[in-house]
Amino acid sequence: MKVAVVGLGYWGPNLLRNFLAQQDVEQLIACDTREDRLKVMKQKFPSVILSNDCEKTLTGNSDLVVIATPVATHYPIAKKALLNGKHIWVEKPFTANVAEAEELIEIAESKNLNIFVDHTFIYNGAVIKMKELVDKGELGNILYFDSERINLGLFQRDVNVIWDLAPHDLSIMQYILGFKAKAISANGIANFNGKENIAHISIYFEDNCFAHFHVNWLSPVKIRRMIVGGSKKMLVYDDMENFEKIKVYDSGIEIKTTEGIHEALVQYRIGDMFSPKVNQTEALALGARECLDAIKENRQPLTNGYDGLEIVKLLEASDKSLKGMGRIVEIEELVHF
Amino acid sequence: MKVAVVGLGYWGPNLLRNFLAQQDVEQLIACDTREDRLKVMKQKFPSVILSNDCEKTLTGNSDLVVIATPVATHYPIAKKALLNGKHIWVEKPFTANVAEAEELIEIAESKNLNIFVDHTFIYNGAVIKMKELVDKGELGNILYFDSERINLGLFQRDVNVIWDLAPHDLSIMQYILGFKAKAISANGIANFNGKENIAHISIYFEDNCFAHFHVNWLSPVKIRRMIVGGSKKMLVYDDMENFEKIKVYDSGIEIKTTEGIHEALVQYRIGDMFSPKVNQTEALALGARECLDAIKENRQPLTNGYDGLEIVKLLEASDKSLKGMGRIVEIEELVHF
Amino acid sequence: MKVAVVGLGYWGPNLLRNFLAQQDVEQLIACDTREDRLKVMKQKFPSVILSNDCEKTLTGNSDLVVIATPVATHYPIAKKALLNGKHIWVEKPFTANVAEAEELIEIAESKNLNIFVDHTFIYNGAVIKMKELVDKGELGNILYFDSERINLGLFQRDVNVIWDLAPHDLSIMQYILGFKAKAISANGIANFNGKENIAHISIYFEDNCFAHFHVNWLSPVKIRRMIVGGSKKMLVYDDMENFEKIKVYDSGIEIKTTEGIHEALVQYRIGDMFSPKVNQTEALALGARECLDAIKENRQPLTNGYDGLEIVKLLEASDKSLKGMGRIVEIEELVHF
Amino acid sequence: MKVAVVGLGYWGPNLLRNFLAQQDVEQLIACDTREDRLKVMKQKFPSVILSNDCEKTLTGNSDLVVIATPVATHYPIAKKALLNGKHIWVEKPFTANVAEAEELIEIAESKNLNIFVDHTFIYNGAVIKMKELVDKGELGNILYFDSERINLGLFQRDVNVIWDLAPHDLSIMQYILGFKAKAISANGIANFNGKENIAHISIYFEDNCFAHFHVNWLSPVKIRRMIVGGSKKMLVYDDMENFEKIKVYDSGIEIKTTEGIHEALVQYRIGDMFSPKVNQTEALALGARECLDAIKENRQPLTNGYDGLEIVKLLEASDKSLKGMGRIVEIEELVHF
Repeated sequence: MKVAVVGLGYWGPNLLRNFLAQQDVEQLIACDTREDRLKVMKQKFPSVILSNDCEKTLTGNSDLVVIATPVATHYPIAKKALLNGKHIWVEKPFTANVAEAEELIEIAESKNLNIFVDHTFIYNGAVIKMKELVDKGELGNILYFDSERINLGLFQRDVNVIWDLAPHDLSIMQYILGFKAKAISANGIANFNGKENIAHISIYFEDNCFAHFHVNWLSPVKIRRMIVGGSKKMLVYDDMENFEKIKVYDSGIEIKTTEGIHEALVQYRIGDMFSPKVNQTEALALGARECLDAIKENRQPLTNGYDGLEIVKLLEASDKSLKGMGRIVEIEELVHF
Repeated sequence: MKVAVVGLGYWGPNLLRNFLAQQDVEQLIACDTREDRLKVMKQKFPSVILSNDCEKTLTGNSDLVVIATPVATHYPIAKKALLNGKHIWVEKPFTANVAEAEELIEIAESKNLNIFVDHTFIYNGAVIKMKELVDKGELGNILYFDSERINLGLFQRDVNVIWDLAPHDLSIMQYILGFKAKAISANGIANFNGKENIAHISIYFEDNCFAHFHVNWLSPVKIRRMIVGGSKKMLVYDDMENFEKIKVYDSGIEIKTTEGIHEALVQYRIGDMFSPKVNQTEALALGARECLDAIKENRQPLTNGYDGLEIVKLLEASDKSLKGMGRIVEIEELVHF
Repeated sequence: MKVAVVGLGYWGPNLLRNFLAQQDVEQLIACDTREDRLKVMKQKFPSVILSNDCEKTLTGNSDLVVIATPVATHYPIAKKALLNGKHIWVEKPFTANVAEAEELIEIAESKNLNIFVDHTFIYNGAVIKMKELVDKGELGNILYFDSERINLGLFQRDVNVIWDLAPHDLSIMQYILGFKAKAISANGIANFNGKENIAHISIYFEDNCFAHFHVNWLSPVKIRRMIVGGSKKMLVYDDMENFEKIKVYDSGIEIKTTEGIHEALVQYRIGDMFSPKVNQTEALALGARECLDAIKENRQPLTNGYDGLEIVKLLEASDKSLKGMGRIVEIEELVHF
Repeated sequence: MKVAVVGLGYWGPNLLRNFLAQQDVEQLIACDTREDRLKVMKQKFPSVILSNDCEKTLTGNSDLVVIATPVATHYPIAKKALLNGKHIWVEKPFTANVAEAEELIEIAESKNLNIFVDHTFIYNGAVIKMKELVDKGELGNILYFDSERINLGLFQRDVNVIWDLAPHDLSIMQYILGFKAKAISANGIANFNGKENIAHISIYFEDNCFAHFHVNWLSPVKIRRMIVGGSKKMLVYDDMENFEKIKVYDSGIEIKTTEGIHEALVQYRIGDMFSPKVNQTEALALGARECLDAIKENRQPLTNGYDGLEIVKLLEASDKSLKGMGRIVEIEELVHF
């Protein structure tokens, strides 16, 4: 396999390092127009081939093009790579809007090429454990999903805090719960430069489930925490914990009545807590493996264009709702597929 | 001073205990129609006069009637007490709607009687410290206020989780920021009995400030935390901490540009942290003292009917917005005063 | 049952409250020579009979005398109570030295009276859970027991920090591990008034087990934590945690060799963690119940004179070792029984 | 400057990386007899010169030899390097006994060569901040120093847990308090292979100060915490905290009496807490810089042979005391200088 990584900013070096470690990668090109970035890569990864010519990289002999450039450029670069017969890996969020995502999926399908969208957290040991627990029914029916990702973060110039941080959490939610978001209400504020730096997203589902996402670039404390409430048990995923990232609480409520739910006496129950061991393998290593394996086996990867599209739908809907100060936006409004 | 406490449920005993401890309370009546509650009070507070006759208590010789009954009954009981010339203390939330609150305020004013609304947290040492820090400009301009109050709580039959928990946090916000909420967007879900058990409230202000409140009766972990983001410093109030409840972070962002805010390079800055000592006196003791002092000095108490009314406005607006799945509701829509 | 509580200082009110709550206590006397303490008790517990005459109380009609006076006075008061045919409850530590403890046990046995020593933590839900887990072999063989109890505490005038705090932890250790301490080494310092305010106690056992106790009156942070290391699993009891007081770690080491232990490759293993629900009943309520039941059933209580004696042996040995700056002291040196 | 690193085990790669980053290092040799380790280094640091010939490396053209081999081999390698006119950097602990350390210091002095002992924590931002606070008198007189370093660690075959972990904490203590340890008492247990895996060290000083060190390879939880108690304030250094590593508590005790200390009423006082920002620069980078600068400036480095010797004295004394189950060992007994 020949791989080319385009875009050597914050995330690019991690991609290079992980593709370098894959046995079946025989050629690795690193491409950026910024000479200083190429110089840094040369020092870190002397065996990698450097290029400052994006055009040439996209039309060269690579099998897979890995795109780690700003969001707005995903679509043109990805399109060119696909049209040149390359499989693509695209950083999150997949594209800047739904239409772009749909077009890329169509092109890839017509040419039998793979799109891998880097929803990295889907390959994280703690998230895999969450999925496993939910799938085998440990929590019962999922009643709600609550996520918080706040810290003092570098403000992005091109996107707001939702496009920057929420794709992580939205992709985890979709992995755990499936594609069933129905409508979105988003609120937030732009304290400085016109891009929201604090935002809250509420998602309504078809069944009686609810999700909420809190993202903030301006918090003095760093919190990365999810709560999944189930009818049987409840789970907390705290990514800031060094060791006990997942905790499953045998706690909940019990409805004691025969007279119908409205008259119910709802009581709470506190039980044992269990914190399962979580696989510590670097998520990006597992992602790179999955991407390469899917190409070889001529199948869709676990995080493919459709997954990327679903997240972009939620992001686009959030922007609409933000402008309406929380106005409810149906996901279906956005679908043209 | 002669005081009568009506309603001896969960909170009633705390009220009795604190009024008993005031030197100038010469007579204390405890009233409830439930004989078992009266029996428990007799054991705990043998010196208190018991009564199962609410009518008589409200028309008796008390100077102050303390109302700790379910929200729906606040209005009729408070009205009768006022009309009989009693000052009143009402548990939060003040009333079940804006119209009731406005009527009670009018009656009290026409008869020169005091209304004390029990926004207990305003008398809490940590909240007093927050107010002090904000007032002397330690944080700079307030950019946002973020509150979370979640745990495994007893479901209320008569009100949803917003009416149950949010008055605490909304009253703290108003104490710190003043009355300037402009519009509300609320989202949530009722998983069981028709009353929302999880809710998120966003509040927009006239200036570029934003507040958010997360309340949840169905969380496996107990979180009671506020973050106040300022242009100079940021503050975290964690009520679950035993010792360091307030932390002030000399952290924030800096805008480095002369080319206007949209092109700004926003950078973050991390500095020292400071955790001031907080007064440990029981809030309810200070509240009882303030209530009695205000009556004696013929002045409005710190938490009076107008404060209660403001919170009821926010609650009523939240209900409207909840029904509209986040629809923005202007606070002014509700004001008939 | 007729009960008399002698000594109404810090702990006395808790004893009164808990004996008051026992159905079979028909008479409760509270005795102290300090009039101000009697006055406070009168307000809190109006149904209790007050007395300032200790002599009379010890010779009166009570079945059980509860002794909550300073350590140095335990022996004379307990002796007089026993000689007057009363069962006794004695606060920890049982006596000021081994000889006193032995004599009281002899008197009680000769007169068929019960001695209950208030090792309160033995009735604590978390400790009961620890005992249960160890007894059913969950942890395997116990390799070590490590305890820390430090905070900013009121300095005692009459005893050092070991006599004040360590009885809690030593009694828990003995409850969990049995009576098998063989030798003690203690170190510490008296920064102020001649009584050690920081101390470390190491205990060696007959089998290859080791225990350590850290007590400190001068710590800026409050820590109350025990670690029990087993050959199969390890347990942490953190009393400062509100909810997850006991955590059992399926972690440990594995010895991979057939060439004998000295050449062994010792590797570590990290697995799941489990936090069992713990009974929240107040320990003192269970202690009072056990004390009364044991008398009625004419049997030794769970925490009796022999338990008290064992702890006093360890305390006396600690003092000897402290003077020798860690000199090892055999427990057997102290036994005259 | 030409530098050779001998020993490419766990710590060697960190040394290579940090010396590579120094501008004035013109040649860097990495030496180990294990071919697999050389191969790994080749991949990570392609610009480094590899060697499997230790003899040649020690007699070659390097100015500085960095020794990162097992403790028992420090002395022969260091001696040969010094005799060949090289400055040396030696990992902690400096040598396997006092005599070796003294001989190396003598050789280095006679040849005007530098010994740098890698007490890395002395270059750690949090430790530097502690030193600064103590030196400017923020804490008042130091009353005690309490250290805990426990986790589930890889058992060493060649040394016990004291020699493995305690040098970190002992060197911090000496940096903060100066060289004034007078006597040591150590206790512990070897549960498995004859080397102690849990140990407690108490140190007595000439003035009324006391230090204690707890090290443990078999703890299910990872704790790295120091408490420094002062007459004015107290400090906690928690290395497991991500952000607030140093906390200074304006808490302590007050002695209220004129009748002499033995009758004193010692009361406690709780005040504000302050957590200063700590420099995040990698300690090893600062250490490498100091080592090279000291050579260039022909002066002793901050952590030199004498510092190394002091720690080895404490370690050797600990071993003696361990064998005597806590027997007090005077540091002077060991000095032959």
